[in-house]
Amino acid sequence: MTPIITAFEASPDRGEGHARDMRVRWAFEEVGLPYEVRLVTFRDMKQAAHLKLQPFGQLPTYEEGELALFETGAIVLHIAQRRAGLLPEEAEARARAVTWMFAALNTVEPPILEWEQTGYSEADKPWHAARLPLMEDRLRVRLASLSARLGKADWLDGAFSAGDLIMVTVLRRLEGSGLLEEYPNLAAYVARAKQRPAYQRAFAAQHAVFVASTGR
Amino acid sequence: MTPIITAFEASPDRGEGHARDMRVRWAFEEVGLPYEVRLVTFRDMKQAAHLKLQPFGQLPTYEEGELALFETGAIVLHIAQRRAGLLPEEAEARARAVTWMFAALNTVEPPILEWEQTGYSEADKPWHAARLPLMEDRLRVRLASLSARLGKADWLDGAFSAGDLIMVTVLRRLEGSGLLEEYPNLAAYVARAKQRPAYQRAFAAQHAVFVASTGR
Repeated sequence: MTPIITAFEASPDRGEGHARDMRVRWAFEEVGLPYEVRLVTFRDMKQAAHLKLQPFGQLPTYEEGELALFETGAIVLHIAQRRAGLLPEEAEARARAVTWMFAALNTVEPPILEWEQTGYSEADKPWHAARLPLMEDRLRVRLASLSARLGKADWLDGAFSAGDLIMVTVLRRLEGSGLLEEYPNLAAYVARAKQRPAYQRAFAAQHAVFVASTGR
Repeated sequence: MTPIITAFEASPDRGEGHARDMRVRWAFEEVGLPYEVRLVTFRDMKQAAHLKLQPFGQLPTYEEGELALFETGAIVLHIAQRRAGLLPEEAEARARAVTWMFAALNTVEPPILEWEQTGYSEADKPWHAARLPLMEDRLRVRLASLSARLGKADWLDGAFSAGDLIMVTVLRRLEGSGLLEEYPNLAAYVARAKQRPAYQRAFAAQHAVFVASTGR
């Protein structure tokens, strides 16, 4: 049974691969499993049929027969458990890779997302210019810790894992801001991940959807 | 080998069980596994020995022989996989329970934490009073979705799971604000969880540490 995921019919990021279906597409490509995509609009996402799959009205969703999942962390973990390629076989190394998935989503992403979202939700507020440096300093604390831990290694803990996959998609949100470049090993880490053939296939697939949407 | 976790020698929440070791203690109690606690100070958390276990200088950490983990999501998942009591046996139900762990940590907690943290990091800023209602509205969006999904059920998906455990600790951060009470089924959900004997043993254990610290 080929799993079906949802993605934006016309992604607001204009095909830059920041929509969260990118994580799931990349995971499928890394382990070599086929998948299908059902495109949805912002309006679809607020309808009962979608809310049954994703109670917060977000995407992607994951359907595999009777199983319905949401949250990219859970979906990527599920894919990684189905087939080798994203988690070590050895139990302790596997637990450490899962730790990095949670670290990416619960420790590194929140201050990055707060900084990003304020750029469109509070840019017109009188306090925005004064708050921005505070938020940047807050996310630098996390980046500095991550940079120190990564050091000169290629990946966070041994071979490339689902932890790296999630972390890279989180760090990519800083692209174009100059913030990532303050930590050259983190910038190199993201660049290294983007060279992976599986990343490139996933990126091309989501980009093609956006390009198609512009011709509609 | 009894696992060792870290906790605050003197928790800044004065033993109210909001420090994240509470989640891990509760998980141990639910599955009936013993654990040991090593107390640390804020100063210890920034030292090399701790950073080796927790690169972001936070707590708790988890040590089990040679295995070292961090991130409460990863630690609770590891405990739940070691022994029955927090995850269904059946694979699909297990994947759905894991989904709720990620939803709690990546979708529900970030706006709650942003709201909470601004109360001590930006309370003295001229914009604080104007921003607070914006942040509350943002977290109400999540609470409304969660409330709609929970409906009249006792737990998020069948029996109590690690997903409920994490979600309840996240929602508890709203205690005393009146925000949780706007969603009576969520308030009842948290109250129901707090009645669990495992919760009460974990709460008492962390509270006793705080009480002892006041006598030092």
